[in-house]
Amino acid sequence: MYINNTIKEIQISDIRKIYEKMQTYEDTINMSLGEPDIDVPEEVKKSVAYHALNTKIKYSPVGGMLELRKKIADFYNKNFDGNFTSDNVLITVGSTEGIASLMKAVITQGDEVLIPTPSYVGYGALIKMTGGMPVYIDLKENNFILTAEILEKHITNKTKMIILTSPDNPSGMTLNEKEMEKITELLKEKEIYLLSDEIYASIVFEKYTSFGKYSEKLKKQLVIISGFSKSHSMTGYRIGYIITNPELQLQVKKVSQYNVTSTSTLSQYGALTALEKCSNRKEISKIYKKRADYFLSELEAMGFKCLKPGGAFYIFAGYENIKELKNLKSLDFAFDLLDKTGLAIVPGSTFQVEGYVRFSLVHDIPVLEEAVKRLKKYMKEIQNN
Amino acid sequence: MYINNTIKEIQISDIRKIYEKMQTYEDTINMSLGEPDIDVPEEVKKSVAYHALNTKIKYSPVGGMLELRKKIADFYNKNFDGNFTSDNVLITVGSTEGIASLMKAVITQGDEVLIPTPSYVGYGALIKMTGGMPVYIDLKENNFILTAEILEKHITNKTKMIILTSPDNPSGMTLNEKEMEKITELLKEKEIYLLSDEIYASIVFEKYTSFGKYSEKLKKQLVIISGFSKSHSMTGYRIGYIITNPELQLQVKKVSQYNVTSTSTLSQYGALTALEKCSNRKEISKIYKKRADYFLSELEAMGFKCLKPGGAFYIFAGYENIKELKNLKSLDFAFDLLDKTGLAIVPGSTFQVEGYVRFSLVHDIPVLEEAVKRLKKYMKEIQNN
Repeated sequence: MYINNTIKEIQISDIRKIYEKMQTYEDTINMSLGEPDIDVPEEVKKSVAYHALNTKIKYSPVGGMLELRKKIADFYNKNFDGNFTSDNVLITVGSTEGIASLMKAVITQGDEVLIPTPSYVGYGALIKMTGGMPVYIDLKENNFILTAEILEKHITNKTKMIILTSPDNPSGMTLNEKEMEKITELLKEKEIYLLSDEIYASIVFEKYTSFGKYSEKLKKQLVIISGFSKSHSMTGYRIGYIITNPELQLQVKKVSQYNVTSTSTLSQYGALTALEKCSNRKEISKIYKKRADYFLSELEAMGFKCLKPGGAFYIFAGYENIKELKNLKSLDFAFDLLDKTGLAIVPGSTFQVEGYVRFSLVHDIPVLEEAVKRLKKYMKEIQNN
Repeated sequence: MYINNTIKEIQISDIRKIYEKMQTYEDTINMSLGEPDIDVPEEVKKSVAYHALNTKIKYSPVGGMLELRKKIADFYNKNFDGNFTSDNVLITVGSTEGIASLMKAVITQGDEVLIPTPSYVGYGALIKMTGGMPVYIDLKENNFILTAEILEKHITNKTKMIILTSPDNPSGMTLNEKEMEKITELLKEKEIYLLSDEIYASIVFEKYTSFGKYSEKLKKQLVIISGFSKSHSMTGYRIGYIITNPELQLQVKKVSQYNVTSTSTLSQYGALTALEKCSNRKEISKIYKKRADYFLSELEAMGFKCLKPGGAFYIFAGYENIKELKNLKSLDFAFDLLDKTGLAIVPGSTFQVEGYVRFSLVHDIPVLEEAVKRLKKYMKEIQNN
């Protein structure tokens, strides 16, 4: 039977392969998935349980509950210098469905979407599924720092969108405010969408600037994507959102309505509580920062070259300076490490960058210490071979 | 800024227009939405509340929890003569996302999808969004009864899929088993998918046959779509499923993974309980049947010609025999009725059939009696004008 070729060619991701292999081992340490170990806030759990028992859970209004959309606008205005109302906000099934419905609304056959690497694995597949083409910008030569100048060089008359992720997955790096200003100036007159993926914006270790600050200048083209999976560990609730101009919000809402009807009403109550009672994630950020500081220094002591995260909960570590590893493909390194130590990580190839691997900091320090112990043993073994 | 033309052209549905107009009136009776008034089962509410408080709610496995997929296969085997295992089942964000992800996996530019009318409004939009073309089969001449013979006449070399909905929305009609056998014989050798939308299969008033019975003969092409929104009133939980062969399940799973990542884990716990503790919906079916019997007889006494529902919770009523109404477009009739009586219904045009309107039986008898009273008054008024 016929299957759409684009779909047939899309591969199950390497993350999944590592994860499945991991199931066959005992005593593993899973540093592969972006699934926070920190629990969902108690207030959110209680609110969801209360509404499950006491509120009639009906279809949500298309596009999401007005009250939640208003709260998200307020949250962005207060914390990220936005200037939004509920009309700018669309509630989605996690940030994923937001990206999927947005792509469907604005990308068509032959369009190019610029993506600096390393980058999240989902973008490329979703672009291809609309007939578009992801065009990756290799930043290795520039120490993975994006500048407006580099961006400009890659813009063609086919460029329909640029995706910037800050803090980034897998590197945790944040965009420099000066460069964001330049990028704003570069894009504002152009017919190019800017998708600013800010899913990690609440988990930051230093001063953070959101593209919300430039929402007036970029009014016609800015789309901010975020959600509650990372900030409030609400991965299993599937709740995210888009912030954009009301005209585009309406178009994406139409796609979203046919794509999923609406987002779980119960999850929306949970998100409301998350914003009302625990929107400040500074304490959570401190936990992740402590882990990042510890793990990065240990990796560097072993010879890895790590990108310095300004947020999120990953370390993206280069191993090309380590002579016993430098000729290994990142997938082979990840499999070998899993095989010999039970430590599961994600190869850089998943993010379009070879010679690097991603460690998820989704364990507390004692577990990270055990991971370091295993890594050291592994390094010693390969150096003695 | 550029917007995909297909998306721009997709209209907000008439149901939505009626619903929005309704908000401006007082003392309305909403018979427009397919939102059950009957509550979510207590067992489901308690289970969801328990898991919200006591279980770590993480990302669901891609494609859904194994235990739920197994339970759905068992449920279909036991109740609908299926022959399925968990490998056949994919959990989706309501049946909507199942249809959306399926369309993306198998429909491409220029493909035709046959849909007998009246039919659910979402199919057409989702087909167009993949570049395909809905081809509606007008059954009015045949009293809205689909036969294998009629179906065969509409098959061309562009036909990639046929969508059959039984019980149907908006008519509640069920397919005749003899015709299902003939349709099975007609399709089994062909390279045409059969999407059997069985979302109302648990709300039936008479003997019901699922295409699950023919799953062996239609192995390569059958896709059953269903969910918990109608049977267990879990509309706001967004949980549905697909049952198909394992190869197609894998392809749709890839689309679904990129489209939404996965379905709410909490909703999956709710669905598990729904199947474990309250899978039998005979009592619920009795409630809807009583409403259908009452409302249909009242409508017919007023001169409407109604399709006889074998399930679901709608009456699809023709008004072409009523001389004061027959020249009205169904949208105009629906707006006029809302304006004069506060009774909100859905025009047949939404389902590709003029001269008909849909009444949703989502109120108990006393409210239906009030609706009848208002309708009678309306009929009297137009007859006196």
